Amino acid sequence: MITLLSDFGAKDVYVAVMKGVMASILPAESVCDLTHEVPPQDILAARFNLMMAYPYFPKGTVHLAVVDPGVGSARRAIALQCPDGFLVGPDNGLFSGVLQKTPVLAAVSLTNAEYWWKGQPSPTFHGRDIFAPAAAHLAKGVPIDQLGDRFDPATLVQPELPPFTCQPEATGLDNYSGYRCTGSLQYIDGFGNLISNIPVQALPDQPWQITLETPAGLRCFSGIKTYSDVPSGTLAALVGSHGWVEIACRNGSAAQILTVAVGASVRLAVT
Amino acid sequence: MITLLSDFGAKDVYVAVMKGVMASILPAESVCDLTHEVPPQDILAARFNLMMAYPYFPKGTVHLAVVDPGVGSARRAIALQCPDGFLVGPDNGLFSGVLQKTPVLAAVSLTNAEYWWKGQPSPTFHGRDIFAPAAAHLAKGVPIDQLGDRFDPATLVQPELPPFTCQPEATGLDNYSGYRCTGSLQYIDGFGNLISNIPVQALPDQPWQITLETPAGLRCFSGIKTYSDVPSGTLAALVGSHGWVEIACRNGSAAQILTVAVGASVRLAVT
Amino acid sequence: MITLLSDFGAKDVYVAVMKGVMASILPAESVCDLTHEVPPQDILAARFNLMMAYPYFPKGTVHLAVVDPGVGSARRAIALQCPDGFLVGPDNGLFSGVLQKTPVLAAVSLTNAEYWWKGQPSPTFHGRDIFAPAAAHLAKGVPIDQLGDRFDPATLVQPELPPFTCQPEATGLDNYSGYRCTGSLQYIDGFGNLISNIPVQALPDQPWQITLETPAGLRCFSGIKTYSDVPSGTLAALVGSHGWVEIACRNGSAAQILTVAVGASVRLAVT
Repeated sequence: MITLLSDFGAKDVYVAVMKGVMASILPAESVCDLTHEVPPQDILAARFNLMMAYPYFPKGTVHLAVVDPGVGSARRAIALQCPDGFLVGPDNGLFSGVLQKTPVLAAVSLTNAEYWWKGQPSPTFHGRDIFAPAAAHLAKGVPIDQLGDRFDPATLVQPELPPFTCQPEATGLDNYSGYRCTGSLQYIDGFGNLISNIPVQALPDQPWQITLETPAGLRCFSGIKTYSDVPSGTLAALVGSHGWVEIACRNGSAAQILTVAVGASVRLAVT
Repeated sequence: MITLLSDFGAKDVYVAVMKGVMASILPAESVCDLTHEVPPQDILAARFNLMMAYPYFPKGTVHLAVVDPGVGSARRAIALQCPDGFLVGPDNGLFSGVLQKTPVLAAVSLTNAEYWWKGQPSPTFHGRDIFAPAAAHLAKGVPIDQLGDRFDPATLVQPELPPFTCQPEATGLDNYSGYRCTGSLQYIDGFGNLISNIPVQALPDQPWQITLETPAGLRCFSGIKTYSDVPSGTLAALVGSHGWVEIACRNGSAAQILTVAVGASVRLAVT
Repeated sequence: MITLLSDFGAKDVYVAVMKGVMASILPAESVCDLTHEVPPQDILAARFNLMMAYPYFPKGTVHLAVVDPGVGSARRAIALQCPDGFLVGPDNGLFSGVLQKTPVLAAVSLTNAEYWWKGQPSPTFHGRDIFAPAAAHLAKGVPIDQLGDRFDPATLVQPELPPFTCQPEATGLDNYSGYRCTGSLQYIDGFGNLISNIPVQALPDQPWQITLETPAGLRCFSGIKTYSDVPSGTLAALVGSHGWVEIACRNGSAAQILTVAVGASVRLAVT
């Protein structure tokens, strides 16, 4: 099975062309769209969506992701082999979310032109000419080392996202004294839920709250279990189905109420 | 074959995660998207779309529909076996359109945790944790009774839609004397066609007209055979390809011209 | 394999109904969506997208395209057999892009009701009742002549698009003296790239430029190799991944900056 994620949208046939190329190499392979509505060139949104979908696919699935602002530049075109599947796309941080939870068994730069689509690749559409053929060949069973040269996974490009850190011993020296963990918003989904990079594992047993930095100042939200714990239209913090702490509005859009962007600071504290 | 309908939209990977879960249970099963652009939590729109698609799929198809404003509450998660296929989703009226034309052979509440996705279901995403696994298991041939406990189909939740009624003997006692049938708008499609719940079978042999209650008062439309019977930009009533009487605008959007909502009253009369 | 292109959008189940019909005739056939976001009734946009996707699919693929403003009128419903695949849809110019580069082996009018969907076709949805069944039967191996009567491909409807012409010997008699080729915009894609009908083969070895007729007068753009040859936000002309000369804005939308429409005149000159 192959999954496909991009920022190509639904209006044009760019996605279909990639599927045609893959079907030409490996007929009857099942292709599952993750999403093609990633905002143009938004690597962080692509990273999050891929990280969310990855664990639910069968072992051996090839995940092809093309959000590629650097196409035509010197950025690497890569394929990664992991214990549960393959990752194919540009080396720009796209895969860093998945790789938080899984090791890389082999990392290869897609330099072998024999496995590209016919002839010279277009400087603007490596999805069609390099990545889709690589994904189809991996799904067909071609060993990853045939696609190009190995490189050290430690050299993979990292995304620019403020990290999540825990401060188990609060210092009490600043305004945020007592806060246990600090993170940031890593994604805003289509329902307007503000998804942080604080994992469920960081939550204390006691009641907790989230502080979010907004343009209008700090806002606090108590942790709840599920949407129906609060009245319609109420903002609250809870663990989303993805396993991260999110700020949501029951029957509404937290993103429309709180005008924040990905990267905004969030802090977790016991109450 | 499995079909999939939801209000999850195209931006996020929620739909793909459900497909990944199903592929993990039943590899290589063909999954057909009905639509994922149902307006958020709009059970009536989901009901209509599912009813429209159901008759065109092969016998044995499993139809998975997740428009689920009550997720995490006490609403039942269900699977229904019908002569031509299976229906899986929340018990909130989603399936009532399909069930107008087909009997239920078995109705089961999805209480058997052995057929849920790994472990405890998330309180906010039963599509992934309960419904998708149930659909995949049914497609795999698991008998419906293994998924949970039987219940009486007569207890299925009914949607809040003004019913369609015929008055073969007009009373002449009110402003609507002479009208044969009364119904309501049940769906407004992407072309702006206003689709009523008056079926083609209710139409008389004589010429007929439709009266629609709009915010600007009653509007009358003569029944025609096909769009090309009227000039471009003209509103008219006709039987849509779905078999219901609709009010449409040739080369335009009736919904943009007539600002009405689903549930608006329509009346059919001979002219 | 079957591909599917339409202007039906993602909101309704019209596309899914066509897939259900095809699955009922030919279970387990792989169906690939090209796009369903063609602007309503925009035959030229459908023509371009189909032309772009066609060469990338395996030999024998059936391409089903339904952008059909004339549904219910006397326009022909057709199937065409080409060396590398089949084309099915209304005879309104949809296929003229593909047919610039491939001959027609057989052209058939879909008049044989035995291969329609059950019974009388709806006057408004031939996609479901005539075209989808024809595509599925062709994919199943039914000979094209069984679907209806042959006609002369020379009688196929041609689209209304200003043609591309080369003037190898510039006359120097008018304002455009020295321009080598004249064409027009044939498509504006989802990134806002303005795609002309000047093929890469028409480009000279020397440096070249494109002149575009806009509402604000003529605009000139120098030809570059790839986006990264110019600063972010800059307009330039280059050969797109599709093989046509396009006017694009690096990290931006040329269509938003230059308010032009499909059909606008473009001229190519050496500089």
